Amino acid sequence: MATVKHPYVPHDLELPGFVPNVLTYETILGVFFGCSALVVLLMFIITGRYKYLTTTERLLAGWWMCTGIIHFIIEGNVVVNNKYYQDSTGHILNEIWKEYTKADSRYATRDAFIITMEAVTAFAWGPLSFLIVVGVLYRTSWRFSAMILVSLGQLYGDVLYYMTCIYEGVHKYSRREPLYFYGYFIGANAIWILIPSLCIVYCIKNINFAVANRGESKRKKL
Amino acid sequence: MATVKHPYVPHDLELPGFVPNVLTYETILGVFFGCSALVVLLMFIITGRYKYLTTTERLLAGWWMCTGIIHFIIEGNVVVNNKYYQDSTGHILNEIWKEYTKADSRYATRDAFIITMEAVTAFAWGPLSFLIVVGVLYRTSWRFSAMILVSLGQLYGDVLYYMTCIYEGVHKYSRREPLYFYGYFIGANAIWILIPSLCIVYCIKNINFAVANRGESKRKKL
Repeated sequence: MATVKHPYVPHDLELPGFVPNVLTYETILGVFFGCSALVVLLMFIITGRYKYLTTTERLLAGWWMCTGIIHFIIEGNVVVNNKYYQDSTGHILNEIWKEYTKADSRYATRDAFIITMEAVTAFAWGPLSFLIVVGVLYRTSWRFSAMILVSLGQLYGDVLYYMTCIYEGVHKYSRREPLYFYGYFIGANAIWILIPSLCIVYCIKNINFAVANRGESKRKKL
Repeated sequence: MATVKHPYVPHDLELPGFVPNVLTYETILGVFFGCSALVVLLMFIITGRYKYLTTTERLLAGWWMCTGIIHFIIEGNVVVNNKYYQDSTGHILNEIWKEYTKADSRYATRDAFIITMEAVTAFAWGPLSFLIVVGVLYRTSWRFSAMILVSLGQLYGDVLYYMTCIYEGVHKYSRREPLYFYGYFIGANAIWILIPSLCIVYCIKNINFAVANRGESKRKKL
């Protein structure tokens, strides 16, 4: 295989068979953020039929459906497909990762932390996110337990994601251009710091209230 | 500094200034497990004065005090003291890590995942463990929220700990002798798979019961 020069850092990284992005970054970002917004919007509209749901719960259903799809489909792809950067077909899932790798080359080099954290995210947090959608829609008693667990999993994974990169020197793996560094590396990942934190606060409030106010007559021995 | 041959794998690892263990492994293990058992036992005895506490709650107080001390003091030491293997004073905290490094040399090589995961464990999960002791003793309404969060943090950190090592080939960093591999690497870490899992089940049961049975009269808008 002839080796084409790749756009990732460090520049001396060997990626045999690398094929540059087929799609433009505008197309890739448009598909990613457009589809994400569409999922949240569709869930918000569909859940309108459940008249007992609050606006917060309808937004939560949208978030968990959207994050579940991103975990399972998009992050799942980069876990199982370790030669995604050789793809020349323009497949959107590989195009997304070929573009994102400009912000973090550890996906291409199959860094042990990145791949194992993404595996847990894709195949544990992913399916559990869909379960949380069900829990929210039917207001099951286990929805807060499930939501606080998966939210902390997302938050902790993302905190370690930032910390490991910073520890090794952030521009060792991430290009310096604002779009890649502030847009992709900082910005896109910050979503999984912000929203899981809000979900954890929401769960803590609801759990603490329920524990403080559980029916005394039914109180069982702890 | 003259370089002394170290007992870690890979053998070609450069650890300038390495000083072999001053204490025997029996002493190190005796101090570690003896002190841990003593903390749990002392907490169990002291909490006997709180007549309303169940046996489970008294054991939980012991566990959280013990794991908090291990996180904050022992794991905190390896995070801040990156040249622990050069210590010749026989300081027990460094002796523990010089011994444990036989089961995982990533502590000596300052692997990015190991150090950042241990930093979160030492300085977030550690202090929060002490808070959980207070929560359990006074049966605060927030004790289950705090316990489920920290338990998942411990469990996820430990799962990634195993997975990253297995992903790179487990004996790349861990010696093959049963004491080091099955005793230290598998066995000692399995405690933080087993007990956090039990704590998560305990929290889920209590949270789900409380949510299902919270006083309807006081039910607030979600």
